Amino acid sequence: MEKKIVSELNPNVSVDCVIFGFDLEKLNVLVIDRGEIAVESSSRLALPGNLIYNNENLDQAAYRVLEELTGLTNIYLEQIGAFGDPNRICKEADKVWLQSIRAEPEARVITVAYFSLVKMEDYMPHASSFAKNAEWVPANDITDLAFDHFDILQGAKFNLKQKIKIQPIGFNLLPEKFTLSQLHKLYESILDKPLDKRNFRRKIQKLDILTNLNEKQAGVPHKPSELYKFNEAKYQDIIQNGYNNFGF
Amino acid sequence: MEKKIVSELNPNVSVDCVIFGFDLEKLNVLVIDRGEIAVESSSRLALPGNLIYNNENLDQAAYRVLEELTGLTNIYLEQIGAFGDPNRICKEADKVWLQSIRAEPEARVITVAYFSLVKMEDYMPHASSFAKNAEWVPANDITDLAFDHFDILQGAKFNLKQKIKIQPIGFNLLPEKFTLSQLHKLYESILDKPLDKRNFRRKIQKLDILTNLNEKQAGVPHKPSELYKFNEAKYQDIIQNGYNNFGF
Repeated sequence: MEKKIVSELNPNVSVDCVIFGFDLEKLNVLVIDRGEIAVESSSRLALPGNLIYNNENLDQAAYRVLEELTGLTNIYLEQIGAFGDPNRICKEADKVWLQSIRAEPEARVITVAYFSLVKMEDYMPHASSFAKNAEWVPANDITDLAFDHFDILQGAKFNLKQKIKIQPIGFNLLPEKFTLSQLHKLYESILDKPLDKRNFRRKIQKLDILTNLNEKQAGVPHKPSELYKFNEAKYQDIIQNGYNNFGF
Repeated sequence: MEKKIVSELNPNVSVDCVIFGFDLEKLNVLVIDRGEIAVESSSRLALPGNLIYNNENLDQAAYRVLEELTGLTNIYLEQIGAFGDPNRICKEADKVWLQSIRAEPEARVITVAYFSLVKMEDYMPHASSFAKNAEWVPANDITDLAFDHFDILQGAKFNLKQKIKIQPIGFNLLPEKFTLSQLHKLYESILDKPLDKRNFRRKIQKLDILTNLNEKQAGVPHKPSELYKFNEAKYQDIIQNGYNNFGF
């Protein structure tokens, strides 16, 4: 006879996911709408997150919760750290909302945050469970989120900013073929500041991480630009060792 | 009348600290000895760690626990992530030991790991609380620790290895004045492999992160070597941007 293992939610530990996408113009982040029970309109939005089950590890919990709330699967999630301020659940609307979904709404919850960079066109979110909606929102337009999710988002953006200075991770946000303009916008969007176009192109060329495909954009309403892709060998080398001359 | 706030330990969340020190020959890590109750001799040793209180944040818990068990204070701790395998407390000796120190020894515990690099001569550990001893042990000699602490140590070592490829963090492990031989040994010790001496010196010189003090070692039983210190301005620049040519 098969033994069914019933597991419980751990009242003290949750996971939250910061999923970044790039629409060729700006950086976006995936959020869920918790619906009208959250009174303040700005904090209706939250990162997809929930308590972990006692029989799953943290990575498993993150993949499960992301799929349950937004339908997204086949994503590589990377842990960015734990957030455990004792007052992270302090807003009135959040407390009211927790009363409606949790068995122990008063319990202190430490959350473990994950992040991912995805090609937006490959992921069409569809909400379920307690998410009334799941949608992409421009990351730099967000000014508030549920609980401490705004802080977690800032942490993830900072992390991304630091990473792109030493590793060509933008690769994961772009389609396979892209133009130098699109790459330039991606860096501006992640670093959240304008970058001189000519300077940027010179630096990128010097890094030798691009392969010119000798192919142009098709069906665009402007003069078509040349298409590039990442030089996979060089890319792997930099992912291992960073943009440096210190190759031990 | 002063209101006394009594807080409880959270049964599900702990912190663990990986403190690295360098004795000018090899990388060391600070461990506690839990005493004879842990039957298997190899796993008597553990990283300093314990449950968090419900009224403190994760950083506060890490500083408190480190001080309670080893006496170390005035250290900069950096979070390296959460470890939450449901089977992280699976060894018999660990279970027996938890029975002796915890109110809910069966509870699932997720731990948040911290790491730090310190100048060993500034920190003389002295054990208290449930630690019978606190001592520096060569990091590359350790083959087992309590719970999943060996995995946490491996994670911290990997983290350190990746970091030193892009940032000159060795600075924190060395005395203010050091020789090129000592710096070379530090890199070998962190990267856990031999590095060609001439090649290493050439790379380090090229990075321009050292200032020659025009001063020699005193009181050494061999030909005294020249002393160097880190070039603070260059160091700060690399800490911000990494060893790269990609200075956005």
